Amino acid sequence: MKIILSINAGSSSVKISVYSAEQNQAPKQIAEAQLSGLTAPPAQLTYSRHGAEAAKGNDVGEKVENQDDAFKVLLKTLTEDPELPEIGQKSDIAIACHRIVHGGDYTTSKIITRDTYHHLEKLTDLAPLHNASALQIVKSCVDELPGATNVACFDSQFHSTIPEHIYTYPINPEIAKKNQLRKYGFHGISYAFITRSVAEFLKKDPADLNIIALHLGSGASACAIKNGKSYDTSMGLTPLAGLPGATRSGSVDPSLVFHYASDVGKLSPASTKDLHISQAEEILNKRSGWAALTGTTNFGTIASSSSADPRHKLAFDLFVDRICGFVGSYYVALQGRVDALVFAGGIGEKSDRLRASVVAQAACLGFAVDEEANARAVEGVVQDVGKEGARHRTLVCQTDEQFEMARGCAEDGELWG
Amino acid sequence: MKIILSINAGSSSVKISVYSAEQNQAPKQIAEAQLSGLTAPPAQLTYSRHGAEAAKGNDVGEKVENQDDAFKVLLKTLTEDPELPEIGQKSDIAIACHRIVHGGDYTTSKIITRDTYHHLEKLTDLAPLHNASALQIVKSCVDELPGATNVACFDSQFHSTIPEHIYTYPINPEIAKKNQLRKYGFHGISYAFITRSVAEFLKKDPADLNIIALHLGSGASACAIKNGKSYDTSMGLTPLAGLPGATRSGSVDPSLVFHYASDVGKLSPASTKDLHISQAEEILNKRSGWAALTGTTNFGTIASSSSADPRHKLAFDLFVDRICGFVGSYYVALQGRVDALVFAGGIGEKSDRLRASVVAQAACLGFAVDEEANARAVEGVVQDVGKEGARHRTLVCQTDEQFEMARGCAEDGELWG
Repeated sequence: MKIILSINAGSSSVKISVYSAEQNQAPKQIAEAQLSGLTAPPAQLTYSRHGAEAAKGNDVGEKVENQDDAFKVLLKTLTEDPELPEIGQKSDIAIACHRIVHGGDYTTSKIITRDTYHHLEKLTDLAPLHNASALQIVKSCVDELPGATNVACFDSQFHSTIPEHIYTYPINPEIAKKNQLRKYGFHGISYAFITRSVAEFLKKDPADLNIIALHLGSGASACAIKNGKSYDTSMGLTPLAGLPGATRSGSVDPSLVFHYASDVGKLSPASTKDLHISQAEEILNKRSGWAALTGTTNFGTIASSSSADPRHKLAFDLFVDRICGFVGSYYVALQGRVDALVFAGGIGEKSDRLRASVVAQAACLGFAVDEEANARAVEGVVQDVGKEGARHRTLVCQTDEQFEMARGCAEDGELWG
Repeated sequence: MKIILSINAGSSSVKISVYSAEQNQAPKQIAEAQLSGLTAPPAQLTYSRHGAEAAKGNDVGEKVENQDDAFKVLLKTLTEDPELPEIGQKSDIAIACHRIVHGGDYTTSKIITRDTYHHLEKLTDLAPLHNASALQIVKSCVDELPGATNVACFDSQFHSTIPEHIYTYPINPEIAKKNQLRKYGFHGISYAFITRSVAEFLKKDPADLNIIALHLGSGASACAIKNGKSYDTSMGLTPLAGLPGATRSGSVDPSLVFHYASDVGKLSPASTKDLHISQAEEILNKRSGWAALTGTTNFGTIASSSSADPRHKLAFDLFVDRICGFVGSYYVALQGRVDALVFAGGIGEKSDRLRASVVAQAACLGFAVDEEANARAVEGVVQDVGKEGARHRTLVCQTDEQFEMARGCAEDGELWG
């Protein structure tokens, strides 16, 4: 038995799920701890172990300035809790796996050694807004958990199967090669979970599964999955491309930002000595999206049918339009051989109104929701919300990136040698 | 009877079609003159009038440095030709209509007065790469044809019917409003021609016509036309967004260009005192597209089935993939109520292989080509290349922007008062 920590650093929160695992078996979650509100202090702790809640939105009373601070608070919470004897001391932790957004050319998870760490640091140049905080935590783990093996799980690795004519940008190929400019795609840990779970639900071999998967959260993307593998996805070189998010513009005319402000090529104040972020990337990643349109990052408020705010209607309709664009596009990419349209992610799992609107617009492709099933709270991992007799299924999947990472570790022979 | 010049300034050519027109009747073309190769001197003149060829690729023996020089050579050719007595002198020209790419908020063509001219100059800030040369020609016409009425026909005006949730970018709305940042769309003069011609061919009222139209040339775009009006289109704030072109990247991750080169926000050497073009816009508009991938701007070479060059195959497959993405997307936007998929533009009209590839990929939507009809050279304005019994028609339309502009003038009461 090994204790695995799955560490998921987001833009304003850090989540750790703790599993006890045997080789080649599904890991069992024994605890889950999250520190959220990092960008709106005070940070709040939510913590449960062995199914019992120990904290819910508690002020931790400590200064938490970044994701690494948050990780240290969470680690202390876990190791000092007498009700979690499985981690009595730090050395009980055998494996720490880290969600790293941008994995460049990596096609599989990697044990982090001094060599790969430096390679990961280089990747940060491609995605400074996304990789930097996870890497700080990796560094902390190397320092504070010398007995643990650190594993990098990349959000891009699931998409390494995308064909060349789809991942290629029509730009100068020498510069593209030198600067590693291509479509990578993200949310891949989630799409791997969705693929496996939906195949199981439909009693299909994953290698025969074709789905259009939508991971819709404050970051949102779509993925065409063909024979269980990523064939196309909406995010690109970075997570900016494709669908809009809470603070992200998604795809816009690539020349737009040059008309947005002068000097968008200059460094943003968010840059550090080591990390260079242009004003443009800051504007399009952090100051756009539905928050810019409506003033709230909370899509639940926007999607509420009781809202009379025209800005909410605009943001909702815009999001549905962009999602439907990808549904149509990927339907053609899969040549109509689609087992299901799958909604996942915070918004995809919670907003029945969004699901109903997308499916109604895409009815011509043979999708339809059952109103009652769609309105029901989602239980279990996969729930069918499609209408009986519809040409294609419509499903909701409660995706679980931390579990998917731990599962990968349980199946990785290198970690059990 | 009035003589109308339709003037179409492209990036490396200027074309003038001359019509004799009566109010509210289809104008009759009496001459057509084109000067091409402006970016690869010497410039070559092609000229015919009353159906007789007078020049074909002739070196004009004059220094032609820009579109305005080209216009002056063409005007001289027309006025000094004894075989074209309809324009014995400049004062015979009653109307000069100009294709202007970016019309900002203009929803109709406009007679150019001192006031609108200044407004047009302002618009050039939004599209310096696209409007500037047409405006030089407008200025020449004002000076050299004082008796003519100048009319600006905007490539964006057809798209003024796109709904708000589609034309809005999810960015800060105050800045969007102040800087006029929204989807405009282009190739609208062509889409207007296509809509009218296809409605006539299908014997439908244009107000009942739903089509997915593809204008595929060295600039390429797609358009969802609902009830005869533009509902969505692939180009955006500028012609850069959407499909790739000969030298244009089309939509790429909006942060890509910041990883392409340093200082992309700086002014390109192509900038002038009055026109500011960033390095980024220069790179993505002029140094990308299939020319960057293959070394040739000629899509005919790329699409040739005899080419064994893997770069040609990559560029071809990439273009088909991106086109099919919009076909699927717009099929959903039109909720499957589609009268026809329509191919137009140089490539759309000439490349049967491209048409066959797109339609084969989109077969799941109910499109199919008839191999024999698709291989036949296109005659007339609209040709059916669809398979009998297919759920939706597939058509080719030989679009004619100059005719469409002249037609608009013939129907504009203001010009005949």
